[in-house]
Amino acid sequence: MHQRKPVIGVMGGHKVTASVMDMAHELGGLIARRGWVLLCGGRDVGVMAASARGAKEAGGLVVGILPGKSTARASADLDVAIPTGLGDGRNLINVYASDVVIACPGALGTLSEVVFAIKHGKPVILLGLDAGSALDKYRRGGKIRNAHSPNDAVEQAAACL
Amino acid sequence: MHQRKPVIGVMGGHKVTASVMDMAHELGGLIARRGWVLLCGGRDVGVMAASARGAKEAGGLVVGILPGKSTARASADLDVAIPTGLGDGRNLINVYASDVVIACPGALGTLSEVVFAIKHGKPVILLGLDAGSALDKYRRGGKIRNAHSPNDAVEQAAACL
Amino acid sequence: MHQRKPVIGVMGGHKVTASVMDMAHELGGLIARRGWVLLCGGRDVGVMAASARGAKEAGGLVVGILPGKSTARASADLDVAIPTGLGDGRNLINVYASDVVIACPGALGTLSEVVFAIKHGKPVILLGLDAGSALDKYRRGGKIRNAHSPNDAVEQAAACL
Amino acid sequence: MHQRKPVIGVMGGHKVTASVMDMAHELGGLIARRGWVLLCGGRDVGVMAASARGAKEAGGLVVGILPGKSTARASADLDVAIPTGLGDGRNLINVYASDVVIACPGALGTLSEVVFAIKHGKPVILLGLDAGSALDKYRRGGKIRNAHSPNDAVEQAAACL
Repeated sequence: MHQRKPVIGVMGGHKVTASVMDMAHELGGLIARRGWVLLCGGRDVGVMAASARGAKEAGGLVVGILPGKSTARASADLDVAIPTGLGDGRNLINVYASDVVIACPGALGTLSEVVFAIKHGKPVILLGLDAGSALDKYRRGGKIRNAHSPNDAVEQAAACL
Repeated sequence: MHQRKPVIGVMGGHKVTASVMDMAHELGGLIARRGWVLLCGGRDVGVMAASARGAKEAGGLVVGILPGKSTARASADLDVAIPTGLGDGRNLINVYASDVVIACPGALGTLSEVVFAIKHGKPVILLGLDAGSALDKYRRGGKIRNAHSPNDAVEQAAACL
Repeated sequence: MHQRKPVIGVMGGHKVTASVMDMAHELGGLIARRGWVLLCGGRDVGVMAASARGAKEAGGLVVGILPGKSTARASADLDVAIPTGLGDGRNLINVYASDVVIACPGALGTLSEVVFAIKHGKPVILLGLDAGSALDKYRRGGKIRNAHSPNDAVEQAAACL
Repeated sequence: MHQRKPVIGVMGGHKVTASVMDMAHELGGLIARRGWVLLCGGRDVGVMAASARGAKEAGGLVVGILPGKSTARASADLDVAIPTGLGDGRNLINVYASDVVIACPGALGTLSEVVFAIKHGKPVILLGLDAGSALDKYRRGGKIRNAHSPNDAVEQAAACL
């Protein structure tokens, strides 16, 4: 029987430092080499773009869930671009569509995705994102874990599948 | 010219303590007495139900934005019940539709509303909700403030309008 | 016990003739005088604006479900303005939130609302809208009916409540 | 530069005759052999399932946009399953995400997709769906065209890309 590949959602900010971009790029490559689908927010900026690029260069399948109604501002590295017209409402779809969520540094949008991921029972791996004390109790319950490198994040994601 | 009344969004958990229920009830009444519209998540439980009840008893106009497709589980105190069929996606509508958001104790859903409210520039008043350290920088920027009582929350809301 | 008022959704185009505007205005007034809530798409144009105006002038409660993220282009006659950020996706909420749908002349958006209303079991009354032959079988099943005047539409709506 | 493959949205009912299932299966295969992505509603029934099966068997990439919050009832032939939690609201995403829409026989959901596709400027090809007289004017404007076979539909789709 045909079996869908695991989908790893990579979340993170649209304005991040060069070192976060490098990290997201490396993460995307590692996800692709595992044979997993990389899902991201799809825009041509920040963690979305860097992780998509990394996965694409490694021959992976890349899916972007876009906030707008068209693919106008999509990353060129997406294989599948899904415009939703939902604005930030697409953050919830990012979560529904991912088997595991890896959260890189970002701001409020990324935080909303972490919150929804916990709420909907998706394993969350924080890779450089400080999700703050409000989520500490979920960390203690094992719903959030911290990774210290892209490789560590991918190892932990594998353990969740 | 006809002028719409200010809309105050009251957010909070569906499972809260009796003292939080009392607080939400008092808050709803104060909002109604100001002549403002109370907007909440509309279900017949928790802070939604208590604040709706308080506002209704005080003669206010009460609007509920429901996660489901029907009014089946709506609070009986709503004047206007809007089923959205969006699940947690309706949290974003709660924010769009409010001029000020007052956040009572709650869990992940409430936290998502605080996050979206900051992101979309709506003043947020925390009334007993610990939003955690991740949002500290927004507190310093004046986008979140803390209230120590329902009356204080309503005074602060008035200053935002 | 508090009982919510029936909600009548008035649908129709944003670009319509003066006589359709007059009809929508009259319809809004009749809905308000029945003590029902008028719900519409909320924008300051077309059938939305005319029906809202008619209801407001008659002292009714008027709710608008807006496609955008803000109330920027809302009719001034709304009592409650709900920005959804969903674009045409809000058409489905118009249907969920209405007890009866009255469809005035309009184009594709209005047709989508008629289609969703039938699909979700809401009575549909066509007031000057030609919904086309594809929906004939639903007309035969009583799910759609035709009205020849605003007064007739409101009489038929009353029979559905 | 990396170039996304065209996305062909195949719409149609969840309850259809065996001959419609055969037609949708053939259509899916033809789409895949062109090197296009097949996008459908993703569920394990009707035109969605048959077209996905056909495309998968022909080695294509298959994307399903699901109405629910999980992949529980997804077709086993999807490569990418996107749960949206939007119910019929996902019909609009089907349209946004497609470069061309091919509409097989179906009921109200399919009709809503045809209506939204015209509204949002996506070419629509009717393959056995009677969209009714209300859409005649769009047919005259070239926004809707009729195909008499899966092969004809795919030829016409190619001309739209």
